Amino acid sequence: MVARARSEERRAEILRAALEVIAERGYRGASLGAVAERVGLTQQGLLHYFPTKEALLVAVLEERDQWDAVPARTWRLDLLTSLVEYNAMRPGIVQTFSALLGESVTESHPAREYFTARYAAVRPSMATVLRAEYGDRLPSGLTPEQAAPLLVAVMDGLQYQWLLDPEAVDMATAFRNFLTLLEGPSATG
Amino acid sequence: MVARARSEERRAEILRAALEVIAERGYRGASLGAVAERVGLTQQGLLHYFPTKEALLVAVLEERDQWDAVPARTWRLDLLTSLVEYNAMRPGIVQTFSALLGESVTESHPAREYFTARYAAVRPSMATVLRAEYGDRLPSGLTPEQAAPLLVAVMDGLQYQWLLDPEAVDMATAFRNFLTLLEGPSATG
Repeated sequence: MVARARSEERRAEILRAALEVIAERGYRGASLGAVAERVGLTQQGLLHYFPTKEALLVAVLEERDQWDAVPARTWRLDLLTSLVEYNAMRPGIVQTFSALLGESVTESHPAREYFTARYAAVRPSMATVLRAEYGDRLPSGLTPEQAAPLLVAVMDGLQYQWLLDPEAVDMATAFRNFLTLLEGPSATG
Repeated sequence: MVARARSEERRAEILRAALEVIAERGYRGASLGAVAERVGLTQQGLLHYFPTKEALLVAVLEERDQWDAVPARTWRLDLLTSLVEYNAMRPGIVQTFSALLGESVTESHPAREYFTARYAAVRPSMATVLRAEYGDRLPSGLTPEQAAPLLVAVMDGLQYQWLLDPEAVDMATAFRNFLTLLEGPSATG
């Protein structure tokens, strides 16, 4: 049991180190070697915990999901805006998410399962947020289930535009504009 | 001049072959070797035209942009729906676009310039489409320039959700729902 606890602790330490390396050097710089060095392991030693770079990065994203998690019933649309603002301050992890999401749509990629499961969970979770805000119909007439994939798509799509050209795209402002669309004319007129 | 014309013709032939290979085998299967074989070149011969797989795939996307191009003033929102429907029938090229877009946000990736330039052109082009439809204000109060990045983000973001889980996400229906959001309550109520 002690060995197991130590192993868990080591794993957590590796994930924190990976997050630091990502923040400092970006997705490409986050090599297994760089992470191993930071935690004082050989690359071989690191492979015992994470067999590939992709496995390590997926574990980092899962860990972030844990930290970012808000109990389903306490999510609100304005908290999503805060999340987008927060993401704009941590380009390394957003870049890692976006790069891995891109790779994950290719054949039998190791991150595919993570992203498929994530969207299958995030869409209903966002529908719950929208239902809490608007009831069974949004001002536009859409149901929460119809609007949820659009909300998720906008967040993901804006990240690509922002990562490619941070000067041209202000993610938080653009996301607020999307919320204005959800509200419809009555909210702005 | 004849040599040049032959070279151009050969290049076009390679791009058509690459598109076929992508459609049949997907992004990962579209190796330089597979494309070279289809046009009867050695891999070394193909490298004369395209030095890397990324360069070849970017050229394929540029060629698609040419084919998909609609003169700016004739674009309409309902044509965008047709484009989304059309894309749902060609997963190979959508997968190639999405995978390369993901990679392009990493440091000094060869596709970064293509995507940055593409978005810098597509956002104003979509703003023009929205202005033709709604004038200077959408029903929600947003300007065409505010709505354009959202329109682009939704199209890109839905592609990821669809590629990961085609049964769960109907791209064309979801995009139509987004157009309903743009219209606002008056159009649906």
